[in-house]
Amino acid sequence: MLVVMSADATPSQVSAVTDKIHSLGFTPQVGQGGTRTVVVVSGNHGLEGREALLRLPGVEEVLRTTPPYKLAARDAHSGPSTFPVAGTRIGGGCTLIAGPCSVESERMLLETATFMTRLGVKLLRAGAYKPRTSPYSFQGLGEEGLRLLAKVKEQTNIGIVTEVLDAEAVARVEEVADVLQVGTRNMQNTTLLRRLGAARRPVLLKRGMAATVDEWLLAAEYVLAGGNPRVILCERGIRTAVDHPYATLDLGVIPIVKQRSHLPIIVDPSHGTGRAAFVPAMGRAALAAGADGLLIEVHPDPVNARSDGQQSLTFDEFEQLHRALRSLADALGVALL
Amino acid sequence: MLVVMSADATPSQVSAVTDKIHSLGFTPQVGQGGTRTVVVVSGNHGLEGREALLRLPGVEEVLRTTPPYKLAARDAHSGPSTFPVAGTRIGGGCTLIAGPCSVESERMLLETATFMTRLGVKLLRAGAYKPRTSPYSFQGLGEEGLRLLAKVKEQTNIGIVTEVLDAEAVARVEEVADVLQVGTRNMQNTTLLRRLGAARRPVLLKRGMAATVDEWLLAAEYVLAGGNPRVILCERGIRTAVDHPYATLDLGVIPIVKQRSHLPIIVDPSHGTGRAAFVPAMGRAALAAGADGLLIEVHPDPVNARSDGQQSLTFDEFEQLHRALRSLADALGVALL
Amino acid sequence: MLVVMSADATPSQVSAVTDKIHSLGFTPQVGQGGTRTVVVVSGNHGLEGREALLRLPGVEEVLRTTPPYKLAARDAHSGPSTFPVAGTRIGGGCTLIAGPCSVESERMLLETATFMTRLGVKLLRAGAYKPRTSPYSFQGLGEEGLRLLAKVKEQTNIGIVTEVLDAEAVARVEEVADVLQVGTRNMQNTTLLRRLGAARRPVLLKRGMAATVDEWLLAAEYVLAGGNPRVILCERGIRTAVDHPYATLDLGVIPIVKQRSHLPIIVDPSHGTGRAAFVPAMGRAALAAGADGLLIEVHPDPVNARSDGQQSLTFDEFEQLHRALRSLADALGVALL
Amino acid sequence: MLVVMSADATPSQVSAVTDKIHSLGFTPQVGQGGTRTVVVVSGNHGLEGREALLRLPGVEEVLRTTPPYKLAARDAHSGPSTFPVAGTRIGGGCTLIAGPCSVESERMLLETATFMTRLGVKLLRAGAYKPRTSPYSFQGLGEEGLRLLAKVKEQTNIGIVTEVLDAEAVARVEEVADVLQVGTRNMQNTTLLRRLGAARRPVLLKRGMAATVDEWLLAAEYVLAGGNPRVILCERGIRTAVDHPYATLDLGVIPIVKQRSHLPIIVDPSHGTGRAAFVPAMGRAALAAGADGLLIEVHPDPVNARSDGQQSLTFDEFEQLHRALRSLADALGVALL
Repeated sequence: MLVVMSADATPSQVSAVTDKIHSLGFTPQVGQGGTRTVVVVSGNHGLEGREALLRLPGVEEVLRTTPPYKLAARDAHSGPSTFPVAGTRIGGGCTLIAGPCSVESERMLLETATFMTRLGVKLLRAGAYKPRTSPYSFQGLGEEGLRLLAKVKEQTNIGIVTEVLDAEAVARVEEVADVLQVGTRNMQNTTLLRRLGAARRPVLLKRGMAATVDEWLLAAEYVLAGGNPRVILCERGIRTAVDHPYATLDLGVIPIVKQRSHLPIIVDPSHGTGRAAFVPAMGRAALAAGADGLLIEVHPDPVNARSDGQQSLTFDEFEQLHRALRSLADALGVALL
Repeated sequence: MLVVMSADATPSQVSAVTDKIHSLGFTPQVGQGGTRTVVVVSGNHGLEGREALLRLPGVEEVLRTTPPYKLAARDAHSGPSTFPVAGTRIGGGCTLIAGPCSVESERMLLETATFMTRLGVKLLRAGAYKPRTSPYSFQGLGEEGLRLLAKVKEQTNIGIVTEVLDAEAVARVEEVADVLQVGTRNMQNTTLLRRLGAARRPVLLKRGMAATVDEWLLAAEYVLAGGNPRVILCERGIRTAVDHPYATLDLGVIPIVKQRSHLPIIVDPSHGTGRAAFVPAMGRAALAAGADGLLIEVHPDPVNARSDGQQSLTFDEFEQLHRALRSLADALGVALL
Repeated sequence: MLVVMSADATPSQVSAVTDKIHSLGFTPQVGQGGTRTVVVVSGNHGLEGREALLRLPGVEEVLRTTPPYKLAARDAHSGPSTFPVAGTRIGGGCTLIAGPCSVESERMLLETATFMTRLGVKLLRAGAYKPRTSPYSFQGLGEEGLRLLAKVKEQTNIGIVTEVLDAEAVARVEEVADVLQVGTRNMQNTTLLRRLGAARRPVLLKRGMAATVDEWLLAAEYVLAGGNPRVILCERGIRTAVDHPYATLDLGVIPIVKQRSHLPIIVDPSHGTGRAAFVPAMGRAALAAGADGLLIEVHPDPVNARSDGQQSLTFDEFEQLHRALRSLADALGVALL
Repeated sequence: MLVVMSADATPSQVSAVTDKIHSLGFTPQVGQGGTRTVVVVSGNHGLEGREALLRLPGVEEVLRTTPPYKLAARDAHSGPSTFPVAGTRIGGGCTLIAGPCSVESERMLLETATFMTRLGVKLLRAGAYKPRTSPYSFQGLGEEGLRLLAKVKEQTNIGIVTEVLDAEAVARVEEVADVLQVGTRNMQNTTLLRRLGAARRPVLLKRGMAATVDEWLLAAEYVLAGGNPRVILCERGIRTAVDHPYATLDLGVIPIVKQRSHLPIIVDPSHGTGRAAFVPAMGRAALAAGADGLLIEVHPDPVNARSDGQQSLTFDEFEQLHRALRSLADALGVALL
């Protein structure tokens, strides 16, 4: 951490800063940067003590030099994380996860799982609990949805990725789920994150609508620090000032995350574009950018879907995308899982 | 709702749209806008059916004409909402809420409450549970913090505004709290919002980091639809592309909210600026813009605060701001509560 | 400037950094911050050398400690800048500038100038040249507009604030204008900024749609460095991810600019809200936040305006706002000019 | 265009709206959408008349149904635009443009051009005039830079892509340039855009820092409407609220632009990431997303570059990326030009 003094800071103000740093248990080192005195702080972690220092007279800014997360940091691990899930794995390839936004009926779920299995896709996404922007929108089938997921899993042996909305539901959902999904709106739901630190399943952590990389990795850190080392980051588009149908997919975050962290990062081009017509281009791009997986909404009949029909692919459209991804993966030397 | 067809949409595509609208139970009306055919939908509420229509061939966009919220809408209420809280009221004046970020000790809490009471401020803010970005930051004193809040309330008779992090804690927190605060990170925590619909206390709903007005009002709608009509909106700065210390305070949202909704809206200039030096200017501006209240962080010793010291006012600074607000409120003909 | 090395940087990588700093003519000083080696750079200005250092192996980030502007910096001036304009002044009060978006006819211009003069407003805004988003929108009357401005100025003695679109037009526009306005879209038009450094008139520099404070002050620096010390900054709303009618007015930038710079800053609540109904609230708020002036669109007949009717006040609405501003200015102890 | 009335609009307010529409020369058609009266406007183009209608009492919003651009719209052209440039073409493949940020010397320019020619890259980028954020940064060699570009073009026969900063310089720059680049900061410099409508060369139009797709296409429309049909759009990253080193590359804009317009769109992953280490991933992703070309900064010695060293690839790095792009283009069935 680095304290930048204002241009007109007095020696006694600099002394007050070094005293405060000592009193926090850290070590100050005074230097000159341009026209300002700077004080380098060592012995602390991340941003500890920053808020207090910012309040001292003559302090202009306090800058971070060390990442604020420990377990999520790349240094914390020898190479990228990879772990097995439901007969496939996350990390070290590009793992496909596909299926409807929400569980609507046994028939459509079985139909989708059978189709996915035929293509070699090992993980099915489908929500039993849906966090909707409006209280008047379809909120999912709830426990009945979980029951249907369990049934289809038994019948097809496909792995299940499904959302958990609150700490109280974790035990119930992980009976069925192979991966516990945390939605965008809950990325900083600390009660939930803490509970997931004790979960038996990997956690798929969607990025918040305006989350910085550090905030996202700190949300993952809650889970890691709780004792669950299996976190999958999922980029799904951020909210920006430009007029896209739903979100701006931030593929540039992939190499940034890989530079800072060992955690796998997958991409959701369905929410990331908000329109089925744009999903194939962004699915291909995510693979080419180095994503560890793709999370894609597919529905047997999107026009009659109870949610997200506008961004769900039909089976035919998904099959065509699947072929393109396979050829691209071959060219890139990446395993499509 | 309005369906805009693409320029090259065929008559049979338009027919498919009107058929779908009929099958959803709504009424279509076909018209011509510029170079496009448009289909006006009536009988629906808000955006019902939008996702399905977007997926039909020849559909370019589906636009909203009716607000997606009902109970939060201005039409739903005769005039602005106002309700009593702990010997004062919210709505119809500018109500001050002040205090430390978090409960740190009985001594500092009592000192602050006594100071506030002397100035005539009737509501104390202080968190027992803190949702922090990093798992390594101070997370609040928890139940001990609630106990201290109850004690100080008893001693000074000041009203308590404090945060609740999850549905499970609501019953416990509302034993002490006069107003239940929902933090920015939890604005779309639907499990919590639903539970607050059954709470006995008013809810102070902070705006999410990148929430649109409609998303914010829909989050309020979860509480209102659950049966709790007392929701206070709180603007606390949004995340933007510009390089401010913490957030961009969106005061322009005040007249917009007042045009769309009857709910009271207050402003938090402390989080909204992230620096104590900027709080007075933004506190004054919020009052002048028509805010129904201000939520301000004040601490007896900001440099030694356990959280948010950088943006907390000292007692002297708050007293000076209080004087400025009083004179401004007089000029505006607004009651400072 | 401060070079932060990555956690696994080798001693020879640190040496390469200090060598590079020496070769750039600056002085390095090595320190330890948290888990990283940091190198404080002195002798440079702003960000000189940053791009090169970022490319060296083992360098994680290069942070700024000194502002990149010199003449615009607060240190460069004893107290806030203030200068006379057309019988009034900018700085040290709140100066009103009002009028139509564009010059439409002699009659409407004279009517507006007469009305303003009666209220004591000394500066008239009106564009002869309009930079429009669409090539098919009204682009202003051009030279005929300048001629009308000159005529009305002669008749009413009101000061003229009008836009200049390119370097070539500066000489022509400053024949008439008392203040040369640079629009949002041209904030970083360096050819124009450089030419304005040699202009005879003060420059009103509108902030770019997504400009940071530093970029804005650097744009001002182009004018200042060219020899023209009279720059007025104008906040007019930034583009954000939230769904406001036109822009998000960033009033929080006022205390930030005043902390970093001596330049006066005024606010345009008309573009900053995009709707006439919201202008009064934001005009009052800007004054309370410490703005050095207000730029407001007023039109004798907004419904028939050729541009910006949606955000222009009628004479009656402006007169009512003017009264509110006067009472507010008195309460604040600010001169309304 | 569609006028949405507020819920409590009176019949006489609706009449005033239809009267105004008639008086503007358009045709109104009244309908009911949800709880609101809506008036569909036909006969107008884009947003003509919107500002005036927004100012009428009882009007809540005025929505667009027709795109505001004509010549840039997809409907205006049979299929995507493609045109020859300097022995290669833009459109219908993926065209590479590479080279240094700025012309620094004849030696480095010749070395780069020779290297590019050897790889089969037909277009060299290099700026003689540089629009810099700070007046103290290197601003390019100016006319001397143009002279060096002409010389290297003569020696290697490579095509030249170089920036033009203002209308006055167009004639001089197009003596040398095969493509005239308009930078991000000048995307809405209407004087320049108008002049380029009469230029003899294709225009490469970089997207503004916060430009929506419609604003970008309207900027292109200025050039097209002036008579120059050869505009190449260039996505180069937008400014967002997330903490990336420089910008957020918006690859999702590619399929959106292709849906709305016939103009070719290329991608600049160098500015779009701000760091050389991230360029290869984003270059591959842009190709996979369907970009019509890539604009990449390459420098013989990035650490000693006079500008943009942090994001420039070395020759070796570019050669490696070139191989990856070739293999990817083959898998995608796209011609790498």
